[in-house]
Amino acid sequence: MMDLQAILDGIHAELLPRLGEGKVADYIPELAKVDPRQFGMAIVTVDGQVHSVGDAQAPFSIQSISKVFMLTLALGKVGEQLWTRVGREPSGSAFNSIVQLEHEAGIPRNPFINAGAIAISDVVLSGHAPREAIGELLRFVRYLSDDEAVTIDEKVARSETQTGFRNFALANFMRSYGNLDHPVEHVLGVYFHQCALSMNCQQLAKAGLYLAARGTNPLTGHSVVSPKRARRINALMLTCGHYDGSGDFAYHVGLPGKSGVGGGIMAVAPGIASIAVWSPGLNKVGNSQLGAVALEMLAARTGWSVFGD
Amino acid sequence: MMDLQAILDGIHAELLPRLGEGKVADYIPELAKVDPRQFGMAIVTVDGQVHSVGDAQAPFSIQSISKVFMLTLALGKVGEQLWTRVGREPSGSAFNSIVQLEHEAGIPRNPFINAGAIAISDVVLSGHAPREAIGELLRFVRYLSDDEAVTIDEKVARSETQTGFRNFALANFMRSYGNLDHPVEHVLGVYFHQCALSMNCQQLAKAGLYLAARGTNPLTGHSVVSPKRARRINALMLTCGHYDGSGDFAYHVGLPGKSGVGGGIMAVAPGIASIAVWSPGLNKVGNSQLGAVALEMLAARTGWSVFGD
Amino acid sequence: MMDLQAILDGIHAELLPRLGEGKVADYIPELAKVDPRQFGMAIVTVDGQVHSVGDAQAPFSIQSISKVFMLTLALGKVGEQLWTRVGREPSGSAFNSIVQLEHEAGIPRNPFINAGAIAISDVVLSGHAPREAIGELLRFVRYLSDDEAVTIDEKVARSETQTGFRNFALANFMRSYGNLDHPVEHVLGVYFHQCALSMNCQQLAKAGLYLAARGTNPLTGHSVVSPKRARRINALMLTCGHYDGSGDFAYHVGLPGKSGVGGGIMAVAPGIASIAVWSPGLNKVGNSQLGAVALEMLAARTGWSVFGD
Amino acid sequence: MMDLQAILDGIHAELLPRLGEGKVADYIPELAKVDPRQFGMAIVTVDGQVHSVGDAQAPFSIQSISKVFMLTLALGKVGEQLWTRVGREPSGSAFNSIVQLEHEAGIPRNPFINAGAIAISDVVLSGHAPREAIGELLRFVRYLSDDEAVTIDEKVARSETQTGFRNFALANFMRSYGNLDHPVEHVLGVYFHQCALSMNCQQLAKAGLYLAARGTNPLTGHSVVSPKRARRINALMLTCGHYDGSGDFAYHVGLPGKSGVGGGIMAVAPGIASIAVWSPGLNKVGNSQLGAVALEMLAARTGWSVFGD
Repeated sequence: MMDLQAILDGIHAELLPRLGEGKVADYIPELAKVDPRQFGMAIVTVDGQVHSVGDAQAPFSIQSISKVFMLTLALGKVGEQLWTRVGREPSGSAFNSIVQLEHEAGIPRNPFINAGAIAISDVVLSGHAPREAIGELLRFVRYLSDDEAVTIDEKVARSETQTGFRNFALANFMRSYGNLDHPVEHVLGVYFHQCALSMNCQQLAKAGLYLAARGTNPLTGHSVVSPKRARRINALMLTCGHYDGSGDFAYHVGLPGKSGVGGGIMAVAPGIASIAVWSPGLNKVGNSQLGAVALEMLAARTGWSVFGD
Repeated sequence: MMDLQAILDGIHAELLPRLGEGKVADYIPELAKVDPRQFGMAIVTVDGQVHSVGDAQAPFSIQSISKVFMLTLALGKVGEQLWTRVGREPSGSAFNSIVQLEHEAGIPRNPFINAGAIAISDVVLSGHAPREAIGELLRFVRYLSDDEAVTIDEKVARSETQTGFRNFALANFMRSYGNLDHPVEHVLGVYFHQCALSMNCQQLAKAGLYLAARGTNPLTGHSVVSPKRARRINALMLTCGHYDGSGDFAYHVGLPGKSGVGGGIMAVAPGIASIAVWSPGLNKVGNSQLGAVALEMLAARTGWSVFGD
Repeated sequence: MMDLQAILDGIHAELLPRLGEGKVADYIPELAKVDPRQFGMAIVTVDGQVHSVGDAQAPFSIQSISKVFMLTLALGKVGEQLWTRVGREPSGSAFNSIVQLEHEAGIPRNPFINAGAIAISDVVLSGHAPREAIGELLRFVRYLSDDEAVTIDEKVARSETQTGFRNFALANFMRSYGNLDHPVEHVLGVYFHQCALSMNCQQLAKAGLYLAARGTNPLTGHSVVSPKRARRINALMLTCGHYDGSGDFAYHVGLPGKSGVGGGIMAVAPGIASIAVWSPGLNKVGNSQLGAVALEMLAARTGWSVFGD
Repeated sequence: MMDLQAILDGIHAELLPRLGEGKVADYIPELAKVDPRQFGMAIVTVDGQVHSVGDAQAPFSIQSISKVFMLTLALGKVGEQLWTRVGREPSGSAFNSIVQLEHEAGIPRNPFINAGAIAISDVVLSGHAPREAIGELLRFVRYLSDDEAVTIDEKVARSETQTGFRNFALANFMRSYGNLDHPVEHVLGVYFHQCALSMNCQQLAKAGLYLAARGTNPLTGHSVVSPKRARRINALMLTCGHYDGSGDFAYHVGLPGKSGVGGGIMAVAPGIASIAVWSPGLNKVGNSQLGAVALEMLAARTGWSVFGD
C-alpha cells in the first residue's frame, strides 16, 4: 500500500520554494486579484480514501474545468449526436483561436476549447432560460461532489461578461454558421456562469471521481454515465484537455486531465483515483505551472500514468 | 483468464463481410497495387502469449509505423534534446500539411507527422551515410522483433522517392529554416526507406512489445528504453499517432497506437500486450478503416483501454 | 470628342440579353428580395456632362461602396494616424474573413474589408452617439452628391442588424485586441446604417466625382479632400476595392472602384469622370457580375484605363 | 515641359544623406556582398528622352523584376490560358509563403510571388532544355532593352541554387499538386537564372518601355505585346508587384512597378515613361527602401501617378 498522504506532503514540501511561479491570468480582471502563492491538492480514491495538502479547502474559480461537467450534461441530453456540433480532435491552436472555426465551417474542434464549450452550452440550454440551465449545472456539480456548498461566483461571471469580447466573437461566428440555436447572450450567459463555478480541491476531486470509477461515484453510489462514456470523456481530456499543451501534459504526466485558467487541474487515474490540484500561476499555454509539476511528481511516484508504470 | 484467441477469431469473423472497406492509398503507386480484401491481426502479451488471425503472416509496408522505431532510435542518440528540433503536440492538420511549419518557423509539431519524421531522420543520420543509417534502423527493427526476416521493400522505397514531391517540399522547407543538418536527398533517402519496411502483423506486434513492458522486451530480455521513456513514447502515440484522427482513435479505442498508410496499426496495452493489425483500406484521415474497428472491438472485449475498463 | 451617351447605350444594348446573370446576395434577407433583372449606369465627367442609361434613377442599397465615404470622413478626422488602426494592403481573403485578424493582432488589412470598415466606423464615432455619426455620414453623402434625396433604408439596416452575426464576431474580435474604442453595438449601429445608404447611379456617380477631380467636386465647387488624398483613396480602391477580386477587376477594367453586395460599383477615371453602375446579380467573389462587365466595356471603348489606352 | 533631369538630380541630392538605409538581402550570399550605399535612377520617356543619375550605369541583380519579362514571355506562349496555372490576385502574404499554396491546391496567387514565377518558368520551359529557355529569356531581355550587354550572373545563379531551399520547397509542393510539368531541377534552373539577370538602371528602364507605350518600344519600334496586354501587365504590377507591400506602394507612389530583392524597382507611367531605380537596402517587406522613396518623390513632382495629378 502506498502512503498517498506522505506523497502529497512530499510534493507540497518540494514545491514550497517555487510558489508564485507562472503568471496569474490577467485578462479576466477578477482572476487577476488572486494571490499567486497558493497551492492545494487533493486525492480521492475509488475505495474512498481522501487525502489533501496545502490550500485544498480554499475555493477557486474552476473556469474551463467546468467544461468536463458540461460535456457530461450535454452527452446526457443528446448522446453521440453531439458530435455533429463539435469535433473530437486536438485543435493545434490556442484555447481562444477563431482561425480553425473559419477553416472548418463553424464546427469547433473539440468540447474543451472555448468555441467548443460555447457550442456545448447551447446544447445544454436546449430551449430553457439561461437561469434554468445554470441552475441545472450547479445542481449537477453539487450532486457530483456531494456537496451543497459549491457556488457560482457572480463577480467572476460578471467580470467575464464585461470583458469576454473574444468569446462574444466566437459565439457570433458560430451563430453565423448556424451552429448556435439560441441567442448569443443566452449561450454566453450559461458559458460565463459555468466558468465562474467556485470549488476547492477536495470538492473538485470528489466531483471527478465518477470518471475514475466506471461512471459511478463509489462514495455516493451516484451513477453518472456508463463505463464506456466515462472512458470516452477521459480520452477527450487526455487528447484535448490542456489546449495546445495537451501533448506536453500527456508526455510528462500521463493522466487524463482538464485545466482551467484559474490555476486548477482535475486529473483522473482510471480505476484508481481522482485528483485536483490548484496553483494560480500559469505557464505560457495557459495551464497551471506548478499544478502540472505536482501531477508529474504524483504520477512518477505512484506509477499511475495510463501509459505504463 | 481471457481467451484472446477466441476474441481474435470473433473479431475476424465479424469483419469478414466488411473486407474491402475504405480506400487503398493510391498516391504511392506501389501501394495502390495491394489487394484491399486482406486482414490480419496479432497479439503478443507481456507474459509471452502469441495469438494471431487472418493474414497475420503476410508482409505489408508498415509506412509511418516505422516513425515509432525511428523516434526510439533518435531519443537514444540525443535524448530529450530532440525536442528542440520537433514538438510534442497534436498538429490539428493533415499528415503532410506544410502550413504549420511556416507558422512555427520550421519546427514540426510532433515526430509522427511527415515533417517531424523527416527531422527525426536527420537526427538519426547524424553524420553517417544514408545507407548506414538505413542499415542501423533495419538492424534495430530486427532486434526489436527478434526476427532477421524483416526487410525493406526497395520497390516501395523507389516508388516513394519518385513521387514524394510533398515530402521533398517539407524537407526543403525545414532546411530553409535550418532545421535539417544533412542534404535533403540523404535525409529523404533514410525517410523513404524507413517507410518501406516490410513486416507482418506478428513481427510488428513483437517489435512493439517493449512499449507495453516498461521498455524491455520480456520475450528476448532485450532492454530498449527506460520505463519512463516507454511511457512517453506511448503518450506521443496516443496524442499524435493517427494524424488528424488521433482524437477519434483515443475516443473509440483508447490505446496508444501508430498507423501507417499501408493499412497497418501498431497498438500498445501498457503492462499487458502489444497488438498489430493490418487491413489496407483507409478511412478519410488516412488510417486503416477496419484496423481501427478491430482494435475498438478488441479494447471493448478485453477492457484494455487505458481510460478505464 | 467621344459620344459617351452612345457608348452607354451600346453597353446597355449588349447586356440586355444577359440581365439576371449572377446571384443576388441572400445573406441579408432584405437584399434577397431585389429583382435581379435590373441594370443602370451613369457617368459624370469632370467638365460637367451627365449621362445615364437603364435603371440609373432607381435607388439601391450601396452597401460597401459607403466604405469609401466613411474612409474619407475618417481621414478628415484623424488624418494619416488612421493607419495605426487599419492597414493598406489587399487581404488575400474573403470580405468577411476573420483569420487575418487573428494572425495580425486585430488590425484589419484595409478599410474596405468588413473588419476594416468596422474599425473606421469606430473612428468616425469618436465619442458621439451612433445617431449623430449616422447623421453626419448622411449629411456628408448628400453634400457629396449635392442631393438631399439620398436616404438610409431603415429596413435594410434592421435586416443586417438582425442577421449580421459575422460582423458582430469581427467587431468583438477587434474589441478583444483593443482596436475598438466604443461599444460593439454602437460601432455596428453606425456600420449597418452606412451599408444601408440608398442611392441611385446618378447620385452615386456625382458623389464620387471629387475622387476624379483632385479632391474637389467641379459641379458644386465643394472641396472635399486634397489632391494627394484623392489619389491615395483611388489607390486603395484599386488594390482593395473588390475584396478578393481586386486583382481581377484591375486586370479587366483598370479603374479604381468599389463594389457593394447590393450590386453597385462606383469607379473613378482620374481627371476624367466618375462612374456608377448597378446590377444586383453577384459573381462568386461578391461583386456585381454585369456591373464589372459593363465597366470593362466602358474602359475598353473609352481608353480610360489608368494602365494605358 | 518638365525638366526631368533636374527632378532626378533633386531627388538624388535629397537622398544622398540617407544612402545605406534599409538592409541588404542576406539570404542569398552573393547579394549580401553588395555595397548598400549605392543609388541609381533612370527615366526613358516614350518620346525618347533618357535621363539618369547616380549609379545608373552600375549593373545589379534584377532578381524578381525579371518576373515581368517572364510573364510577358509566358503570355506570348500560351495566352490567357496561363491563368489556369496561376492566379491574378494579391497574396496577402510574404513573397515566399507556402501557406496559400496549400489552401488553394497548388495554384499560386499571382505571377509575381515566388511560387507564381516558378509556375511561369515551367510554362516558359515548355518541353525545352533549361539552357534553351534561359537563352530565350536572355535574348528577349536584350531585345527589350536593345542592349546585347545584358548578362546573367552565374555566381548569383549558383548562389541561389545552393541556398534556395525555400524555392525547392515551393516547386516540389506545386509538383505534388500537378502544377509543374517539368522536373523541379529544370524549372528552378530557369527560375534561378532569370533572377540572376544583371542589368543597370538605364537598360532596365529601356526594357520596360513597351509597358508604357501600348506594348511597342517606341525607341526601337519593336512590338512586344498588344496594348491590351500591356495594360494588363501594368495592372498586375500595380496590385501584386511589391509582394505584401503592394498596397503601400500604390498608396505612396501610384505607379505600376515591380521590385526585386537586389534593390531594384522598375516602374511604368503609362503613356509617358519607364523608370528604373536601384538602391540595395530593403525595407521590411523586401522592397528597396530608398528606391520606393525616390519613386514617391518622382510621382509627386511629375504628377505621373495613375491615380490623378
